[in-house]
Amino acid sequence: MKKLLIFGVGLIGGSLALALRRSQSDWHVVGVGRHGDSLQEALDLGIIDEAATDLALALQDTDVVVIATPVAQTPAIFSSIAPLLDVNTVITDVGSTKADVAADALRLLGAAASRFVPGHPIAGAEKSGPAAANADLFVNKNVVLTPLEATDSKALDAVSELWLATGARVRRMSAAEHDGIFAAVSHLPHLLAFALVDDLASRPNSAQFFELAASGFRDFTRIAGSSPEMWRDISLANREALLQELDTYQQTLSQLRELLHKQDGNQLLALFERASRARTDWAQQHPQQASSWKN
Amino acid sequence: MKKLLIFGVGLIGGSLALALRRSQSDWHVVGVGRHGDSLQEALDLGIIDEAATDLALALQDTDVVVIATPVAQTPAIFSSIAPLLDVNTVITDVGSTKADVAADALRLLGAAASRFVPGHPIAGAEKSGPAAANADLFVNKNVVLTPLEATDSKALDAVSELWLATGARVRRMSAAEHDGIFAAVSHLPHLLAFALVDDLASRPNSAQFFELAASGFRDFTRIAGSSPEMWRDISLANREALLQELDTYQQTLSQLRELLHKQDGNQLLALFERASRARTDWAQQHPQQASSWKN
Repeated sequence: MKKLLIFGVGLIGGSLALALRRSQSDWHVVGVGRHGDSLQEALDLGIIDEAATDLALALQDTDVVVIATPVAQTPAIFSSIAPLLDVNTVITDVGSTKADVAADALRLLGAAASRFVPGHPIAGAEKSGPAAANADLFVNKNVVLTPLEATDSKALDAVSELWLATGARVRRMSAAEHDGIFAAVSHLPHLLAFALVDDLASRPNSAQFFELAASGFRDFTRIAGSSPEMWRDISLANREALLQELDTYQQTLSQLRELLHKQDGNQLLALFERASRARTDWAQQHPQQASSWKN
Repeated sequence: MKKLLIFGVGLIGGSLALALRRSQSDWHVVGVGRHGDSLQEALDLGIIDEAATDLALALQDTDVVVIATPVAQTPAIFSSIAPLLDVNTVITDVGSTKADVAADALRLLGAAASRFVPGHPIAGAEKSGPAAANADLFVNKNVVLTPLEATDSKALDAVSELWLATGARVRRMSAAEHDGIFAAVSHLPHLLAFALVDDLASRPNSAQFFELAASGFRDFTRIAGSSPEMWRDISLANREALLQELDTYQQTLSQLRELLHKQDGNQLLALFERASRARTDWAQQHPQQASSWKN
């Protein structure tokens, strides 16, 4: 019997639990949360075996602790579990940024920091809560682990195995590299979409824009419907890398503006061709990421 | 019997033909094109009754001429039909920008300019060619007509009726207003998506970005897979309005950058909340535009 303790049994935490239980029947899953209803729902749905009422008891003999709450809660969770952890318990998380979590772990987990493996499953999250949990969520998805220098190799192996058991592909890189990549491919696009929608919504004739906006607008701005709190947290947590990406992007836009101003059709065409080819190639080479299980 | 002459029997031209034939059985549809294979396909698919070989003959007794080719061909088409048009023939187009087309019409159509009604059906165009044509394409979609001051009211009514018969909603506004709105909700987003993808594709470690890009990137950049030539043409045609929108957007991004730099979580949250609410409201109020028949 192996024991998994999950803080935050929502879409990600719940799906991880379901995937692991499907892969191995001897997981005992304990859920910890701030919302009694949500934990009850997770129990009723068979996602967890037990809803924790006593943290010390919950942490006894635990093999893996997964922190899957909104990222703002992670430091407090670190502080609360640090004095209660068994010497072999491995801890991991699922947050969208890694350098900040790694720094918090070093600062707050004490000796247990060497058994913390920062992790990030790249999996869809439009729905939320335990009812959205799905054992297939991570199949063929990427999971990035960003072990610290201090991270124990056995802990790293344990978390790698955990994710491999869900059907995911696991890769490792530094926290800095992770945060830089996701600033570019995820965090910046969210900010850009938020900015466009807010701009249009603030205009006196905003209704007319929204009346006539169609499929291009729909796709480009879908991510602007995301959780504002989550994105405030991600933006602040990944501020350095985001500022860098934003500056780079502003330069690209200025160059584009110049081409348009000069009416340089050839250079505009070249830019659009490079982008269109790259986008089409990507969709063909990564159909899993370029399509959605939701559709 | 009514006679429709379509230049460019592709997705838009073909779908218009199918929708009109379904609405009224007495349309005789003639297709004009530069690609023999494509016209043959349109004939085989029953989209057109006849492939024109002689433009003068094709234009005889024609009730409506629809120009549905790539927009760069429109001026040449104006020039070629101007001396051959019957006095009652109405002409319309389907291009993504209207002020430029209106100016070309005034310059090239001579007396017939008063019977030209600039039009723009706001309908999906990911696929192309006659095989993609679909009689339902315009059902519940918006069609914007931008009559010139010179436009004859009977011509305007005729084109309005034409589009209403396809199930579309028809609205009228000035060409300038149209171009301003679509610069904001369509043209700028395309440029922004092209810029992001080109930027990432140009980096030494581009492969890593594309390896890890997932659903947010997918949605935001879908429109970057669009036709480079079409978007060069639209960008140049709508240059003034686009430059204005780009400048406004660059200012918005600079403000956002400042909030991030100052770590102003409250203002970031407020911005994200306004945007998220506007995006969600839009999707609820305009489900037709916010979802896709393609999915």
